[in-house]
Amino acid sequence: MLLKSPARRLVAEGVGTALLLAIVVGSGIMGDRLSGGNVAIALLANTVATGAGLVALILTFGPISGAHLNPVVTLAVAWQGGLPWRMVPGYLAAQLIGALAGVAAAHRMFDLPLYSLSNHARAGTGQLWSEVVATFGLLSVIWGCTHSRPAVTPFAVGAYITAAYWFTASTSFANPAVTIARAMTDTFAGIRPADVPGFMCAQIVGAGAATILFKWLTPSEA
Amino acid sequence: MLLKSPARRLVAEGVGTALLLAIVVGSGIMGDRLSGGNVAIALLANTVATGAGLVALILTFGPISGAHLNPVVTLAVAWQGGLPWRMVPGYLAAQLIGALAGVAAAHRMFDLPLYSLSNHARAGTGQLWSEVVATFGLLSVIWGCTHSRPAVTPFAVGAYITAAYWFTASTSFANPAVTIARAMTDTFAGIRPADVPGFMCAQIVGAGAATILFKWLTPSEA
Amino acid sequence: MLLKSPARRLVAEGVGTALLLAIVVGSGIMGDRLSGGNVAIALLANTVATGAGLVALILTFGPISGAHLNPVVTLAVAWQGGLPWRMVPGYLAAQLIGALAGVAAAHRMFDLPLYSLSNHARAGTGQLWSEVVATFGLLSVIWGCTHSRPAVTPFAVGAYITAAYWFTASTSFANPAVTIARAMTDTFAGIRPADVPGFMCAQIVGAGAATILFKWLTPSEA
Amino acid sequence: MLLKSPARRLVAEGVGTALLLAIVVGSGIMGDRLSGGNVAIALLANTVATGAGLVALILTFGPISGAHLNPVVTLAVAWQGGLPWRMVPGYLAAQLIGALAGVAAAHRMFDLPLYSLSNHARAGTGQLWSEVVATFGLLSVIWGCTHSRPAVTPFAVGAYITAAYWFTASTSFANPAVTIARAMTDTFAGIRPADVPGFMCAQIVGAGAATILFKWLTPSEA
Repeated sequence: MLLKSPARRLVAEGVGTALLLAIVVGSGIMGDRLSGGNVAIALLANTVATGAGLVALILTFGPISGAHLNPVVTLAVAWQGGLPWRMVPGYLAAQLIGALAGVAAAHRMFDLPLYSLSNHARAGTGQLWSEVVATFGLLSVIWGCTHSRPAVTPFAVGAYITAAYWFTASTSFANPAVTIARAMTDTFAGIRPADVPGFMCAQIVGAGAATILFKWLTPSEA
Repeated sequence: MLLKSPARRLVAEGVGTALLLAIVVGSGIMGDRLSGGNVAIALLANTVATGAGLVALILTFGPISGAHLNPVVTLAVAWQGGLPWRMVPGYLAAQLIGALAGVAAAHRMFDLPLYSLSNHARAGTGQLWSEVVATFGLLSVIWGCTHSRPAVTPFAVGAYITAAYWFTASTSFANPAVTIARAMTDTFAGIRPADVPGFMCAQIVGAGAATILFKWLTPSEA
Repeated sequence: MLLKSPARRLVAEGVGTALLLAIVVGSGIMGDRLSGGNVAIALLANTVATGAGLVALILTFGPISGAHLNPVVTLAVAWQGGLPWRMVPGYLAAQLIGALAGVAAAHRMFDLPLYSLSNHARAGTGQLWSEVVATFGLLSVIWGCTHSRPAVTPFAVGAYITAAYWFTASTSFANPAVTIARAMTDTFAGIRPADVPGFMCAQIVGAGAATILFKWLTPSEA
Repeated sequence: MLLKSPARRLVAEGVGTALLLAIVVGSGIMGDRLSGGNVAIALLANTVATGAGLVALILTFGPISGAHLNPVVTLAVAWQGGLPWRMVPGYLAAQLIGALAGVAAAHRMFDLPLYSLSNHARAGTGQLWSEVVATFGLLSVIWGCTHSRPAVTPFAVGAYITAAYWFTASTSFANPAVTIARAMTDTFAGIRPADVPGFMCAQIVGAGAATILFKWLTPSEA
């Protein structure tokens, strides 16, 4: 599949990540409001929206930019030679700007201030280990599918994140741009700014481990 | 894929849009009745039914008429040269007539009068911005998928609408024919007639923006 | 795809329909027991199980027998020349025997008597119209997909039935063998024996209408 | 599709089964905690996570090891000539070790001791019959799909297990490695150690019956 020119790729990463954050944050607000404090039902709505939304977004933007929508995916792909390093700063910037724009877009839909710092504490070793596992699993899915049948990757990633919302104690952020942007929303999906660096470190560890594992599991000469 | 003769295409658009409205309105009534006022569970049922139903309808009617089932899709496709303008009035009429028939079909199943004007207020800038975003996202998905791998479009659209029910404050009408028809049902899925024109304008803005963006993102010579 | 010998096809129809009924009846019992009387949640569980189960069953048995699992599908397919009429009695018998076996299998799992007559009233014109619409939609999906891209039919049928549980007032039986067998279970999914003949007539009407419509919509020379 | 070297295959089975158990056990804990004792909602979350997670895991590890993740699948495949018997002990060991590691990984995420013996009684003929049916259905799906269109197997298995959580009284363990590992968690997904041998016998019976049936239904010369 032919990827597009650099400008088109960066716009696609930005718009795609904006829609991803609008989905994560917006469906969290809606779930929280409608469920009247029943957290399980709110998270179920949040999960269904995010999993289904990711399938749609990766199918839509994948042919243009690869639809990383995630800095650790961009870094891992560049590390393995799938993206020139000179493209990486642009990808990361587009993802971060897009993520912040998506939060504002969601807040505007629900008549909230464009940004608000989260008070949602997500700390402790259980949470950090959750992010290691969550990101390890996400990168495993991406490497495993991309290697042998890339056409199913959008479905595999959407399905994985659907599971990961529930099997990790952190509800699986697994994405540094998403983590930073979710610090800017004092709603259901938020994370306290002080907890962001730990999450990001854990995500890098998990992504690195999966990349090393799959480099061995699926050598290119196999 | 070979599309069929004009008469067949119009009937397919009409029957498909009728089934779509029967699904949206009927599952709203059922969800509302069974959930005993728990709006989150009612909307979850409404979401699952609509998302899954759209996958089935687009797979079924796509090969015949393209399964637009949505006036802004028809207008955007005609604008980009994918449908002759002379077919457009027929498509729009078939969609509107089908949508109205679908509401009556749903009401009849639940032993309600065939039509009833909705009292459900859906106004304010958050709602309008929601419809801009919802329709922008829908057309992005359609253009992104159609350009590179049209076979997945039915799944991408169903997945997107599943997400959009929850991440927008309006639950994503994103379709003028659906909006008009839902003014004729004083049930869970209804919208006050006075709020219809604003929704339709917002939908046209969102659809136009996505079409312009994807015309640049995915030039035909790429 | 090569279908198998007659004996294999009949066994596949029987085992497939047995598993279908075990899924419909069993998940109804489980949903009802766990939800503590919350009918919306019980029906949501019943829906998810049936929709997903149908995808699996049609993928599994489709290459052997076509995976009709439904007498009106068998009759419609024979009518349109897709199955020799001499195979029809065997298909119908296998479906009915399988359906009854499936109910007993489900009851045994939940420590209930193998059969019990249902007291669940499902009568009135709204219910009958629901079955007409439900079966019309089911056959539309089957004809629409089979004509142009049969590989997606299992997913389209599963998605359609997921929607149909919620948008019809009857929860969409849409299958005479299923209807008869569900008269034999006095649980969540049951139907009073007196209401069975009306449901079956409505199903035949809906299936016939969709078959005639799609014969015109998708002529074989198109 | 070319499978990888033995060492890679065993690591893939181990990591895949570990992630499977993390999903099953972790989502059970999360569902239980958030739902405040509403078992239907907890099981719905558990179901959605497991079904979606299985799709992702089988897509990810299938091309490397076949993604059995299940001793009865490995035994059945070896019986039918799809895996050399000398590989079987390694597969079973990798699955068991992976399953136990996955339980510990999940417990660590939720700040629980790494292992705890379950007190969850799952006994009686209804439960055993449930496991026979559950595993019969699982192996039917695997044999039916693998025979004619292996690319859909991951989706069919995920869909089947989604259904099986609800239509069997045992919530469908259908996997001896999963059963043993779930004895080591005194949480939502646990099973009392005393009930493990019965479950394993029932699983072997169900798997054997399906393998014999499908050997006849889909002869290799057909």
